[in-house]
Amino acid sequence: MIAVDVMSGEKPPEVVIRGALKALEEFNVKIALVGDEAHIEHCLKKVQYDNKKIKIFHATEVIMMHETPAVACKKKKDASIMVCTRLIKEGKAQGLFSPGNTGATLVAALMNIGRVDGVLRPTLGIYVPTVKGASLLIDAGANMDCTPEYLAQFAIMGEVFARRVQRKKNPSVGILSIGGEKTKGNELTLKTYDILKDLDFNFVGNIEGYDIYNGDVDVIVCDGFVGNVVLKVTERVFKLTFEFVGQEVQDHLLQRIGYAFLYPAVRKLRKKMDPRMYGGAYLIGLKGSVVIGHGSSDATTVYNGIQMVNSGIKNRVNELITEQLEKYGFNKKKNSSGDQKA
Amino acid sequence: MIAVDVMSGEKPPEVVIRGALKALEEFNVKIALVGDEAHIEHCLKKVQYDNKKIKIFHATEVIMMHETPAVACKKKKDASIMVCTRLIKEGKAQGLFSPGNTGATLVAALMNIGRVDGVLRPTLGIYVPTVKGASLLIDAGANMDCTPEYLAQFAIMGEVFARRVQRKKNPSVGILSIGGEKTKGNELTLKTYDILKDLDFNFVGNIEGYDIYNGDVDVIVCDGFVGNVVLKVTERVFKLTFEFVGQEVQDHLLQRIGYAFLYPAVRKLRKKMDPRMYGGAYLIGLKGSVVIGHGSSDATTVYNGIQMVNSGIKNRVNELITEQLEKYGFNKKKNSSGDQKA
Repeated sequence: MIAVDVMSGEKPPEVVIRGALKALEEFNVKIALVGDEAHIEHCLKKVQYDNKKIKIFHATEVIMMHETPAVACKKKKDASIMVCTRLIKEGKAQGLFSPGNTGATLVAALMNIGRVDGVLRPTLGIYVPTVKGASLLIDAGANMDCTPEYLAQFAIMGEVFARRVQRKKNPSVGILSIGGEKTKGNELTLKTYDILKDLDFNFVGNIEGYDIYNGDVDVIVCDGFVGNVVLKVTERVFKLTFEFVGQEVQDHLLQRIGYAFLYPAVRKLRKKMDPRMYGGAYLIGLKGSVVIGHGSSDATTVYNGIQMVNSGIKNRVNELITEQLEKYGFNKKKNSSGDQKA
Repeated sequence: MIAVDVMSGEKPPEVVIRGALKALEEFNVKIALVGDEAHIEHCLKKVQYDNKKIKIFHATEVIMMHETPAVACKKKKDASIMVCTRLIKEGKAQGLFSPGNTGATLVAALMNIGRVDGVLRPTLGIYVPTVKGASLLIDAGANMDCTPEYLAQFAIMGEVFARRVQRKKNPSVGILSIGGEKTKGNELTLKTYDILKDLDFNFVGNIEGYDIYNGDVDVIVCDGFVGNVVLKVTERVFKLTFEFVGQEVQDHLLQRIGYAFLYPAVRKLRKKMDPRMYGGAYLIGLKGSVVIGHGSSDATTVYNGIQMVNSGIKNRVNELITEQLEKYGFNKKKNSSGDQKA
């Protein structure tokens, strides 16, 4: 069963429910809608849906977008996202989708869902658009201060994800650094390089910020601080470019007309450039398949997100992660030493 | 006197010399042209220039763009950039401009030019285009692994630079982090925040990657790893946006025409978005005013770069840095402890 947090997004619950119902029909999955029971029932009646596959779990509270994650999760024990994560803890659900507050989903998941055996730190993977399709940026903002062991595990988990969920054959893995040469980087990336170079997968070494969007590297590994900065700079520069074009064309009629013609393309691109519109960010390394969708997820994005959750469950991402971590010797022993910065 | 490395850029020496002569005329500065003497004399004859203000310093070698900085600087003791930095060391020049290999200029400067009293690490400041003019990103790639004390010094030096060279009144200083709240960040930025909040300047706290280009913060502080990633992601996303627009409009005649109309604006923007086209990156904290120009600097960019060098000298940036570091207690004592990671 997949728990769907219908309350926490920016769009009304109906929209999330519609996406969930579409996923239910197409993937033959069991869905638990989590939120205000009366309102959910009202929505289901509105769309004339009455299916025994659907379960409703009542939640009395909602964590809003603007709330501080740690504070909100402690205070609102009965928030929809808290109920979703408890369903996984209790073994009733195997995964969850939430279009809500990223930080709150992260905190709730870390509070209620255990780590996969051997995993030092769960991490956030996100699809980034490239000229050759989507690559995976990992960590996209969950872990600020990382050790080389964390980053090496992100690489291993990301590789498994790209193989199992993105269906890539022999996905390539690179470290985000300041240049392609193996001597380029900071202490963290240099030490991570030393670990990854000996692993038995398609490690391609360092790549620089310029090359993220070339699509030559399937899994791009960095700490969550750098990942956050990359995503936000990307989002801003993309918009800024059009702002600057708008400024430039002001005094030129022909250029202004040209720009107007482009509007449909620009609108389409806005969606393409928003990583979370692919379905969501995937929280990897937890005993459950957790996807955090964009706050403004429409029914299609919710559907894509639930597909991602389902794919993580069906393709046994977590089992393979445990296997790989054991294979590479990232067992409990390393766990304790690597954990010191917790 | 300002030393100008005429050999290391991607453009022919004539171009650099033309920019240098223009600066010489306008700012009434003494210029030393550094490179192959015979070739420089030939160029001067070609532009019919014969002025006693110009000195020529012969250099037998050139460090090329593709060379590894540390290796090249050790091997080519008589490279033009090495001669330039020695002129400063010997007190013959007070500053230098080079359109060459950034890393090599950095290494040569660190080898031959001493640090300003109290400075833990010289740093690279670069102008970034924003919707409200240029802000200063510091460190733009010189220091990979930083302590909070380094970052605090970058903030102090950047503030002096913005005040003295960019002529900003009471420039605002922010830390690049993952969100605006003071609790957001990694260990490095949180500890830097703790130092900066007590200093007597316009500290505005944390800003996120999204806000770099808003122009609300004049001096944006980060470590050189993050700075490098920001600059390269910016450069790439800017180009990528146009690539994606190009892909999108392929099948739509009207949109294709619209895009064609926009070409002049796009070309103009390319220059605007390239930080080094403003003149160059400024190496702050050395006993000399050092600007590293873009490899493809044309005469105007060289002229702008030399203006920047000159402004650093005339406005006594280094004196004020020493003063400020003393004022805030960043004296030799802190120097020794902060230096442990050297």
